[in-house]
Amino acid sequence: MSFVNAALHAVPSLPPLPAYEPSTGPLPTEAARDLRGEISLRLDLRHAGIRQVTLRYELLGEAGLPVVFVAGGISAHRHVVASETFPENGWANALAQAGRALDPTRRRLLAIDYVGADGKLDVPLETADQADAIVQLLDALKIEQLHAFVGYSYGALVGLQLAARHPSRLRKLIAVSGAHRAHPYASAWRALQRKAVALGQLQCADAQGLSLARQFAMLSYRTPEEFDERFDAAPEIINGRVRCAAEDYLDAAGAQYVARTPVTAYLRLSESIDLHRLDPAQVGVPTVVVAVEGDRLVPLADSVALVEGLNTQGSSARGQLRVLRSPYGHDAFLKETDRIDNILVAALRDADRNETGETA
Amino acid sequence: MSFVNAALHAVPSLPPLPAYEPSTGPLPTEAARDLRGEISLRLDLRHAGIRQVTLRYELLGEAGLPVVFVAGGISAHRHVVASETFPENGWANALAQAGRALDPTRRRLLAIDYVGADGKLDVPLETADQADAIVQLLDALKIEQLHAFVGYSYGALVGLQLAARHPSRLRKLIAVSGAHRAHPYASAWRALQRKAVALGQLQCADAQGLSLARQFAMLSYRTPEEFDERFDAAPEIINGRVRCAAEDYLDAAGAQYVARTPVTAYLRLSESIDLHRLDPAQVGVPTVVVAVEGDRLVPLADSVALVEGLNTQGSSARGQLRVLRSPYGHDAFLKETDRIDNILVAALRDADRNETGETA
Repeated sequence: MSFVNAALHAVPSLPPLPAYEPSTGPLPTEAARDLRGEISLRLDLRHAGIRQVTLRYELLGEAGLPVVFVAGGISAHRHVVASETFPENGWANALAQAGRALDPTRRRLLAIDYVGADGKLDVPLETADQADAIVQLLDALKIEQLHAFVGYSYGALVGLQLAARHPSRLRKLIAVSGAHRAHPYASAWRALQRKAVALGQLQCADAQGLSLARQFAMLSYRTPEEFDERFDAAPEIINGRVRCAAEDYLDAAGAQYVARTPVTAYLRLSESIDLHRLDPAQVGVPTVVVAVEGDRLVPLADSVALVEGLNTQGSSARGQLRVLRSPYGHDAFLKETDRIDNILVAALRDADRNETGETA
Repeated sequence: MSFVNAALHAVPSLPPLPAYEPSTGPLPTEAARDLRGEISLRLDLRHAGIRQVTLRYELLGEAGLPVVFVAGGISAHRHVVASETFPENGWANALAQAGRALDPTRRRLLAIDYVGADGKLDVPLETADQADAIVQLLDALKIEQLHAFVGYSYGALVGLQLAARHPSRLRKLIAVSGAHRAHPYASAWRALQRKAVALGQLQCADAQGLSLARQFAMLSYRTPEEFDERFDAAPEIINGRVRCAAEDYLDAAGAQYVARTPVTAYLRLSESIDLHRLDPAQVGVPTVVVAVEGDRLVPLADSVALVEGLNTQGSSARGQLRVLRSPYGHDAFLKETDRIDNILVAALRDADRNETGETA
């Protein structure tokens, strides 16, 4: 019942623009199983006015199954998991397997390339812009309400915005390793990464700058515990310079990232994390917040504050906190498959129950 | 008694070179009070063979007082505290005041510019090289034994090497925020800072590269708690780019560092931290290890392991651990003046007692 009310309240917040223009890709039919497509939409960006942008999505699984939106970090994309149709591994391949919470035979999985991920939009972007774009996609796909939105890292921020701005469009939010604000220390870390990019751009060494930025980011995604286990070898002296044990790994991570990421996309999505701020009391759907002790970007205290805000009197959000400790820190979602799956199983089971209750 | 034995054992480890050449500055006489000088010495560097280097020192306080060596981080230098003779503020000005443990009216304070700090030695340096240079300085100054060595950060590493290689030359070591090895995660962090310098050098933007390196280093010296208190303001959009609240502070820290630091000095001293490794059981003098919970460069676990190693059976080191929690993390030594002083007071009081006991 509360969802119906929320839907009514949410309608005026949709921008008074055509929701979408004719798609350049196929729109799903009842028969469609796995499909990729894109829609062209007019988006009213908070810092750059109305822009025409292309939103690319992938929708996996049979029509009629409950749709779960899966959103990852700024380097994630629309391809979550390998399927018959799109057999390459996805960014959350281990999590979205048969028998798991994100089982593509039991849920329909929807994901996007974030607005700005193609590097063609060189303006400040906000997580709220991403949420608004997702609503236009749901309209285009005729999905009235998501069964759940599972967001990790940047995806958690986008999910929180969706749940605050358009609560009727999702039944439940699972927000992993992301809170209602960017922590000032994490923001400083990202700001310096963007400076590394700028230093590279000074003289056309964009790739080196972006690689260095990514390598610094890797340090924020992982933990000292992991590095201690993996890179305890003594440094070497090569060509008269000291080279530490982790450098090969970091170089490879940087090169891999550069190969698939436009500099502008990195810069604008990184900024977007730092612009993220919302009042948890505005979140209008039941939310499970998953925090990782040892996450160097999202301190546990911020996840606790988020859940406290969700449970503010008058809020209908009903927040729950799940905490796990992992040597993978911010990247635990991608690494602690079994433990994350356990949390998702329980969270989605609750969503299933709610659905049953309401449709009965 | 154990000190005498240690002294005998230590002698053969002194390099068979002329200990020092005629100084270009005045050598201290009994009458001298505060003085700066330099000695030219032949140093057998672990990775570069024998080199002629100039070692600059400052010796503060009246002859006859017990000499305490004070050694700071890689950006510290020979000027510890303002005096009548050298009135500008020193790098540990608040700690070395009348009434404190490092009271220049009750101790003679000795400090150096680290080997390599002038940027003229572009070779890999080790903390053991610094310790050997200090021994030659002590010979030149006719200081048979330091009353104590107080080392913070890089200074703690140098102190540990001194205590392992030349235990007869110091009565007691106080090692603050430094352990027997560089932690692999901290090493990775420094390696990336050096890459920022290299990226700057590639662009003939050496200053920007060094500034960026220093800014990343600042994040490792401080804590999220401090940044949260100081820089929680929402970011601004300036010229179409997001600028976070901490960026002014970090820019200023970078510029200040660039103004006083040769790029080569930074690179070689930074490397030197990563090359640092010793067996705690080799440390031959009583040692107080001071750890800061929340130090992002030296995890508490490493300080604990150091003290455990000091207390290995057969070792004469007798290690003690003091832990404090500070929002200043690695920089607590420079910021938590009262608490650090309390620890130093107790540690030096013990050294005083030992001295009285032995001379009685």
